[in-house]
Amino acid sequence: MSDKVTRADELARDHKEISIAEFFEKNKHLLGYENLQKSLLTCVREAVDNALDACEEMNVLPDIYVEIKKIRDNRFKLIVEDNGPGIVKEHIANIFGKLLYGSKFHKLQQSRGQQGIGISASVLYSQLTTGKDTKIYSKIGDGKVHVYELHIDTKTNLPVISKENTIYGNGRGTRIEMEIKGKYMKGKRSVFDYLQQTAVMNPATKLVFLDPDGKKHLFDRVVTKLAKRPKEIKPHISGIELGTLKKMLKITKARNIVSFITTEFSRIGKQTADQIVKGAEVDYKLSPKNLTFSEMEALIESIERTKVSNPPTDCLSPVGEIAIEKGIKKELHPEFIATITRKPAVYRGNPFQIEVGIGYGGDLDKEGQATLMRFANRVPLLYEQSACALTKSLMQTEWKRYGLSQTGSSIPTGPVIFTIHMISVWVPYTSEGKEAVASYPDIIKEVKLGLQDAGRKMQVYLSRKKRASDIEEKKETFRKYIPEIASALNKITGKDAKEIRDKLNKDLEGRVESLEVKTEQYDDLELNKKKTEKDEIEEATEELNEEMTEKEE
Amino acid sequence: MSDKVTRADELARDHKEISIAEFFEKNKHLLGYENLQKSLLTCVREAVDNALDACEEMNVLPDIYVEIKKIRDNRFKLIVEDNGPGIVKEHIANIFGKLLYGSKFHKLQQSRGQQGIGISASVLYSQLTTGKDTKIYSKIGDGKVHVYELHIDTKTNLPVISKENTIYGNGRGTRIEMEIKGKYMKGKRSVFDYLQQTAVMNPATKLVFLDPDGKKHLFDRVVTKLAKRPKEIKPHISGIELGTLKKMLKITKARNIVSFITTEFSRIGKQTADQIVKGAEVDYKLSPKNLTFSEMEALIESIERTKVSNPPTDCLSPVGEIAIEKGIKKELHPEFIATITRKPAVYRGNPFQIEVGIGYGGDLDKEGQATLMRFANRVPLLYEQSACALTKSLMQTEWKRYGLSQTGSSIPTGPVIFTIHMISVWVPYTSEGKEAVASYPDIIKEVKLGLQDAGRKMQVYLSRKKRASDIEEKKETFRKYIPEIASALNKITGKDAKEIRDKLNKDLEGRVESLEVKTEQYDDLELNKKKTEKDEIEEATEELNEEMTEKEE
Repeated sequence: MSDKVTRADELARDHKEISIAEFFEKNKHLLGYENLQKSLLTCVREAVDNALDACEEMNVLPDIYVEIKKIRDNRFKLIVEDNGPGIVKEHIANIFGKLLYGSKFHKLQQSRGQQGIGISASVLYSQLTTGKDTKIYSKIGDGKVHVYELHIDTKTNLPVISKENTIYGNGRGTRIEMEIKGKYMKGKRSVFDYLQQTAVMNPATKLVFLDPDGKKHLFDRVVTKLAKRPKEIKPHISGIELGTLKKMLKITKARNIVSFITTEFSRIGKQTADQIVKGAEVDYKLSPKNLTFSEMEALIESIERTKVSNPPTDCLSPVGEIAIEKGIKKELHPEFIATITRKPAVYRGNPFQIEVGIGYGGDLDKEGQATLMRFANRVPLLYEQSACALTKSLMQTEWKRYGLSQTGSSIPTGPVIFTIHMISVWVPYTSEGKEAVASYPDIIKEVKLGLQDAGRKMQVYLSRKKRASDIEEKKETFRKYIPEIASALNKITGKDAKEIRDKLNKDLEGRVESLEVKTEQYDDLELNKKKTEKDEIEEATEELNEEMTEKEE
Repeated sequence: MSDKVTRADELARDHKEISIAEFFEKNKHLLGYENLQKSLLTCVREAVDNALDACEEMNVLPDIYVEIKKIRDNRFKLIVEDNGPGIVKEHIANIFGKLLYGSKFHKLQQSRGQQGIGISASVLYSQLTTGKDTKIYSKIGDGKVHVYELHIDTKTNLPVISKENTIYGNGRGTRIEMEIKGKYMKGKRSVFDYLQQTAVMNPATKLVFLDPDGKKHLFDRVVTKLAKRPKEIKPHISGIELGTLKKMLKITKARNIVSFITTEFSRIGKQTADQIVKGAEVDYKLSPKNLTFSEMEALIESIERTKVSNPPTDCLSPVGEIAIEKGIKKELHPEFIATITRKPAVYRGNPFQIEVGIGYGGDLDKEGQATLMRFANRVPLLYEQSACALTKSLMQTEWKRYGLSQTGSSIPTGPVIFTIHMISVWVPYTSEGKEAVASYPDIIKEVKLGLQDAGRKMQVYLSRKKRASDIEEKKETFRKYIPEIASALNKITGKDAKEIRDKLNKDLEGRVESLEVKTEQYDDLELNKKKTEKDEIEEATEELNEEMTEKEE
């Protein structure tokens, strides 16, 4: 027996703690460092996202400079500079040299970064592929520049500062310089593609990009006012899980269970709180800390049964239907654009909002599948398209209904561009690389409804366009015969041929006009009819979604 | 200025460390807890994978018991018990109550678990959805049972033990009991599906499953000997990154750079090490700790230029062509099976090996797309099929060449099943949920070559089958006329009709036999011809893969 115990002991000796930095060093593909092209893009993205967040946090119109310098084959230097608030000295090392460290994770507030992993993972990637330290310059407006050179000790997940210096310098902002292994490509999913799409969804940003060929690209701002800053909110009560409730009950300062509900959650009045507590058959004077386990379960069930108000809209800052339309028009020149900003909704207690744009015709490519641009909190998502809830929602919508060609459940074909934008206080990405949105039923439902809303607008345009061309065709046919009819009538009646021709022409225009008025009336009718159908569609979609998310992967 | 500094200060105050448990609590979908059905499956999978690993570590034929008890709607109790070595008391709490803790992460050895996240994430999911603690029983063969009830403090990522007890009990093994929110479903991607596929790739395992309806399922072992235990190895030098080399140079005990290379890496002799050092123009007597940065870079470049031997094969334990054939035959009854176990190869310095099986016809479903079963280190991968390198390799293979129908780059159609198994000392999963293999070019290349190898075998079978049915058809036609010819010849020659008939029949069989021999000779010729083409194909595939991985997402 004793040798067997020894074997278990021996196995036990191997058990060790694993640092998060070691974990991601071995799994760098999880963070977007899967190949050289993508790795370069990921580093640019992390730095630019942080820069934009920083500027917006201080309500400064973002001025972002991005430079990619080629050092030799597959080796680049990346420089990103912003005019944001800068970073106070004490935090620089941790922000760049420690994974899972940041200001955004514990807040429920719409921002690009949320996990506290992004930029430090770029530092890790840089040191892993080139062995070099990352250089950071920070100015917080006190006339000084703090300069750091650092890398991460992966065993401990702590920053190792190799150089630290303070020099004089005015202004504010952060600049980072890193050397990485990468590949610079053009076209789809390139750095340029990312920056251009960023410009579309961030109309108040000025972006200058110096590419490896030394060419300067300017994406200028088209709006000189920042969108209203999204407010931080408390968690929404709907969809709260038992474990989370238990944890909240333990640390709350509320004296009784009713005040716990009204103070710790977003937008719950006393009346609703009373209703929840009553429904759970729990004594409302009970101190939150004294709730038994079965009382907590009853509370959860009562919450599920109670209708609560939607989260406040000021925690979300949509781009807006007009701005999205402008963006699409400016970059892509389609002949028709429909944009929809849906009302905020909730998944797992997190408020979110969907914005959809459809562009049709004009300069858009007529061949092949439609283009889909996905965005989350104003950040373009370039990879993992097929794994994304936004794509799935698009593919599961029946586009034939709205006048587009589609084979089965695939992306429709034709001269069409879709933009789908999800904003939320917490975007549920499918990986730390933040490339696709996870398939929560509530999200898929909202995206589908947004697409249907915009789809209806497009369908009206397309059928009107078709009717207009039908009418024009008929008109042409009639017009061709008018001179002959006129000369025939002239022979029969003896009246002036030109006079008859003019009359006939005038009459034709009149008929067409009345036809066009009828057409528009018909369209309005159709739109209204569709609107009353909408509730039914909404319910059907919901059921479908629930089934689907259970079945699919 | 001072108020602006204050603003930066204010922003700074929000910066905080994030515990890994908090991170995964908020991102539980990353670990496979995306919906109720999948969550139940993930918990079963984590527990069973651990159980199998434990048994194999101690060279015990695995006896695994799985029970799922329904408590009420969407609420289940899960019990998994094994006959492995058990866990020594001191480690129980950390193994189940701390994320990123384990014995497998720091080893280069083929095993199911590798990240030190799996089972503790299940504990986290359980407490989050039901508020309950997980119960663990461990017997290490000293006549005692250690019983723990615990959950995770997410703020600190440390175990909180609510009950601890030692009772008497014989034998060895681990039993875990947890209560979770979940949904029990049948069919594809169900718990039953997972257990059945597990049985196929683990022929030495006995699995008993008691389902929520109280029905007992037995997946018995068909082999009574465990596969040879894969050995732990040192890292392979090819594909090593600068950052890793730098770290290794710092902690090595080797006195000079040549002995550093021969002792710290797998299978590098003195001659190859000399060649690398010479190629880098570095002084071979140099102490590893004194290498300058540019010397390290030169070393990496020289390594890339030097041909080194493949990793040893004893670090990988394939299931084997015969065992896979048995498994497919037993479960699926096709009429033809081809299996291929490729030689070990290397990606990013990690040895790996691909095993492919193709089953055709027989009981397989003739309608629709072929079935693909994916495995990694003997674990079935049920989700994220489209994001997986194994699937991509299948879709990018030209199946028309091998006699199957295929539309574009999709899964071919017909009565076909594919099994693709990747074993490695480190499987690069696309997420912590371990559901898909990341698309490394070297992996895609090997899978494609395996599929091509098996595809050629199938093609020979299919064309032989087609020719055989052609011959049979002709034979039938002749046979029909023999009585008539015989009676005609009887009238002309006066010879006995029966005699003539027998002679004609015999002659026909003889001709057919010689045709069949020719057919086989032709097949061998074809197979050999294909083999000489193979090298070309290999090169072409490699180029293609490189392009592809850069272009695709």
